[in-house]
Amino acid sequence: VHAPVTQVLPIHVTNQKQLLLYEQVAASVAALIEDGVLRAGERAPSLRRICDRHGVSMATAVQAFMQLESRGFLESRPRSGYYVKARPPGRVEAVASPAPSIPMAGRLATLHASLFEAATLPGIVPLGGAVPSAEMLPTVRLNRLLAARARTAGKRGVAYDLPPGSETLRREIAKRMAEAGVAIAPNQILTTCGATEALMLCLRAVTERGDAVAVESPTYFGILHLLEELGLEAVEVPMDPRDGMDLTALEKVLRRRPLAACISIPSFSNPLGSLMPEENKRRLVALLAARRIPLIEDDVFGELHFTASRPRAAKSFDDDGGVLYCGSFSKSLAPGYRVGWVAPGRYAERVRALKLTHTLATATLPELAVADFLAHGGYAHYLRSARSRYAANVARVSEAVTKIFPDGTQVSRPQGGFVLWVTLPAEVDAIEVYDRALAKGVSFAPGHMFSLRQAHRNCLRISCGEPWSPRLQEAIAVIGQLAKRLVSKR
Amino acid sequence: VHAPVTQVLPIHVTNQKQLLLYEQVAASVAALIEDGVLRAGERAPSLRRICDRHGVSMATAVQAFMQLESRGFLESRPRSGYYVKARPPGRVEAVASPAPSIPMAGRLATLHASLFEAATLPGIVPLGGAVPSAEMLPTVRLNRLLAARARTAGKRGVAYDLPPGSETLRREIAKRMAEAGVAIAPNQILTTCGATEALMLCLRAVTERGDAVAVESPTYFGILHLLEELGLEAVEVPMDPRDGMDLTALEKVLRRRPLAACISIPSFSNPLGSLMPEENKRRLVALLAARRIPLIEDDVFGELHFTASRPRAAKSFDDDGGVLYCGSFSKSLAPGYRVGWVAPGRYAERVRALKLTHTLATATLPELAVADFLAHGGYAHYLRSARSRYAANVARVSEAVTKIFPDGTQVSRPQGGFVLWVTLPAEVDAIEVYDRALAKGVSFAPGHMFSLRQAHRNCLRISCGEPWSPRLQEAIAVIGQLAKRLVSKR
Repeated sequence: VHAPVTQVLPIHVTNQKQLLLYEQVAASVAALIEDGVLRAGERAPSLRRICDRHGVSMATAVQAFMQLESRGFLESRPRSGYYVKARPPGRVEAVASPAPSIPMAGRLATLHASLFEAATLPGIVPLGGAVPSAEMLPTVRLNRLLAARARTAGKRGVAYDLPPGSETLRREIAKRMAEAGVAIAPNQILTTCGATEALMLCLRAVTERGDAVAVESPTYFGILHLLEELGLEAVEVPMDPRDGMDLTALEKVLRRRPLAACISIPSFSNPLGSLMPEENKRRLVALLAARRIPLIEDDVFGELHFTASRPRAAKSFDDDGGVLYCGSFSKSLAPGYRVGWVAPGRYAERVRALKLTHTLATATLPELAVADFLAHGGYAHYLRSARSRYAANVARVSEAVTKIFPDGTQVSRPQGGFVLWVTLPAEVDAIEVYDRALAKGVSFAPGHMFSLRQAHRNCLRISCGEPWSPRLQEAIAVIGQLAKRLVSKR
Repeated sequence: VHAPVTQVLPIHVTNQKQLLLYEQVAASVAALIEDGVLRAGERAPSLRRICDRHGVSMATAVQAFMQLESRGFLESRPRSGYYVKARPPGRVEAVASPAPSIPMAGRLATLHASLFEAATLPGIVPLGGAVPSAEMLPTVRLNRLLAARARTAGKRGVAYDLPPGSETLRREIAKRMAEAGVAIAPNQILTTCGATEALMLCLRAVTERGDAVAVESPTYFGILHLLEELGLEAVEVPMDPRDGMDLTALEKVLRRRPLAACISIPSFSNPLGSLMPEENKRRLVALLAARRIPLIEDDVFGELHFTASRPRAAKSFDDDGGVLYCGSFSKSLAPGYRVGWVAPGRYAERVRALKLTHTLATATLPELAVADFLAHGGYAHYLRSARSRYAANVARVSEAVTKIFPDGTQVSRPQGGFVLWVTLPAEVDAIEVYDRALAKGVSFAPGHMFSLRQAHRNCLRISCGEPWSPRLQEAIAVIGQLAKRLVSKR
């Protein structure tokens, strides 16, 4: 019934033919610019026109334009479209060519980048990245605190805040962690450039190329992409949509083979929104501790609970420093500040050395502004309102999906966070929906990205990080109708 | 004549015995605290008293206190000393233990961390890290620009600035690179968390664990530490103190064995301050291009020239995108802003994918503040004054060294940047000087750190990133007198 995925992935470079397709389109537009047919400052042909003229999909046209942009031929102007750029004087770099040594990473890397880029493309509704919209964040107050710090910090503001990072911030973080049941001293915390760096440092600290790492399936694609980049094997452990990682399945894996680490998002899994019960968290930690296997806990959504109280972190059951806890303010305060942290337990010295060689330090003033917000910016008050707004967003999107999507669709019931996991009827391939939705100006995250074993091909993740609006409703309708059409075609 | 280095390295964990020494001291102080002999808020015993009581060196005492600090027993207060800390309530993490799998990295990692930590220890003159002091930087104006951006940026300030990073900043960087002879489009530039991240991304992009990489000897210890962390072999190529990397020696290496990359700091080597002549830069690029070996160019000091004009970058001779150029504003504007960049040539797509998985994005507002400073903050004017002040600092320190240090000492003649390389008489071991100088409150970078082959044991690097002062003069005198004593002891 299915076409092989490679045939419906025009924008994801998986083989030479597809590379040529968007490159051919890009080359032909580049030629028009070089021949002076299209001039500097002029509006580029519309993506729609490119599709018609070259007989390619919208996704291919978008990819071609991205390449033209990165080669300096076009520039995109927010809410306006693509324009021909004045070429820089003098010699220009050779065209970048994808490194030939990353056949596996290629597809995930391209999707990963595309999802985020969709957020910056004019006219695309970005339901792909799990990024809170600025309307959901305490933007004004936070920026004001940063401005105040910048005015008064003097020398401290321009100086390195060397690892483990700002003491002021680490004290505030220790207080937040206490609410998750973790008693920890500020000196056991190290600040990072978001949870992305925290996860990377943890994996580098406890694994070597070729090692196997247990991950949840489905799990956040950034984790899978990172495993690929580090040459690690992902051992996928199935998830229960309500309780998170299936511990019986994990036990089977543990009996079967050695693991260098296990990564889990126990509180509000990305993408399921599942919440691992406390008893399971305790058991997970014990199972791994008994084998001296480190647990990397990703808790970036932990504070955005729809449940009555903040769930305990798995780290709170850690007796021997075997849990490396990763947190971030990217979901709750400001993705662009790039402030996260890690509490690496017994791997603290190793993680600190890695931080020195990888980024040396976290940006000082954003750290201090976040510390100020936590200390006296009304964080608790803000979180209360954010939780109920996210819960409302998720409920509205969930309701719309239930109404519009084809019969047989299943929707997750997140207990926190702001992503929704949708399982379409088994015969629908989410990449086909993705391709067509992008052509209509809607982006989401196809299920393929959440497993390296193509385990979730009929699923998709929708971000609810934006307040409900007619624009959102329309975007959901676009996805739903495309899915319905694909069902009826079979 | 020499004692083996391991015997004079009490603070650098190289074997079990040394680990025990400072751990024993730490444990005995911890016991005093736990027994209530020393109480929360009380001043800790002085380092000097610890030395006397336990019969250990100052370096060991410092290391013990660092461990006590990281275990939450003590806290250091700027310009005041160490105090006993109130223990956090509840269970506390197991003590971090050094990972057993990094025997080689251990020593360099510890020294690397210690140099930077020295800068934050009360009462130590930090001549170790090549870090500009805030007095040398346009601190007030830059912080003011950041404050203005934070007040006015709104949503943009809290949002991700996804790779390749701020367009505004990349345009300004492209202009700076034009002054180094590099014609490059903003879209061929990617912003990073300082040059540290840029170097790391470049190495990850072009190497695999086990590969060999040519480096200069001596070279910046951060590069050597990173190579160790990535499991890469450093092939050390000798340096000419005036012209930089010895290209004849490099050619020999190239004939002998395959290399995955070559790293060079052609303009104002760290630590030599040497300037590779243009003709050599051209030849270096050609030598490597002929073999498709990527050149990673570290140009963080390029704008701080004492020469009449800004030297051309090696990248300016790059015809096929084989040069990965790394830059930073940490030496010229604000280390704590964490803004650097990379122009990765033909490896652009690979580097961009790595940036996504490693830190996702560079902090938005610091990027924009730097862009504003470059565009209309008087950067050119500031650079002119910084160059002459650094040249003066270097000259003063050089003069003092020449006067005070033992006969037979040689001093580098930097043509830019702000570090000085001192070669002591062959019989002096710089680690012995380091150990004793630290005990007297002076830190510098011993030559051992600039090679993995112990090639520069009688050398040391002094940072001149601070304006000349009696305190500096005294610190130089301390180092010189210690060196003299070690000469006469032989």
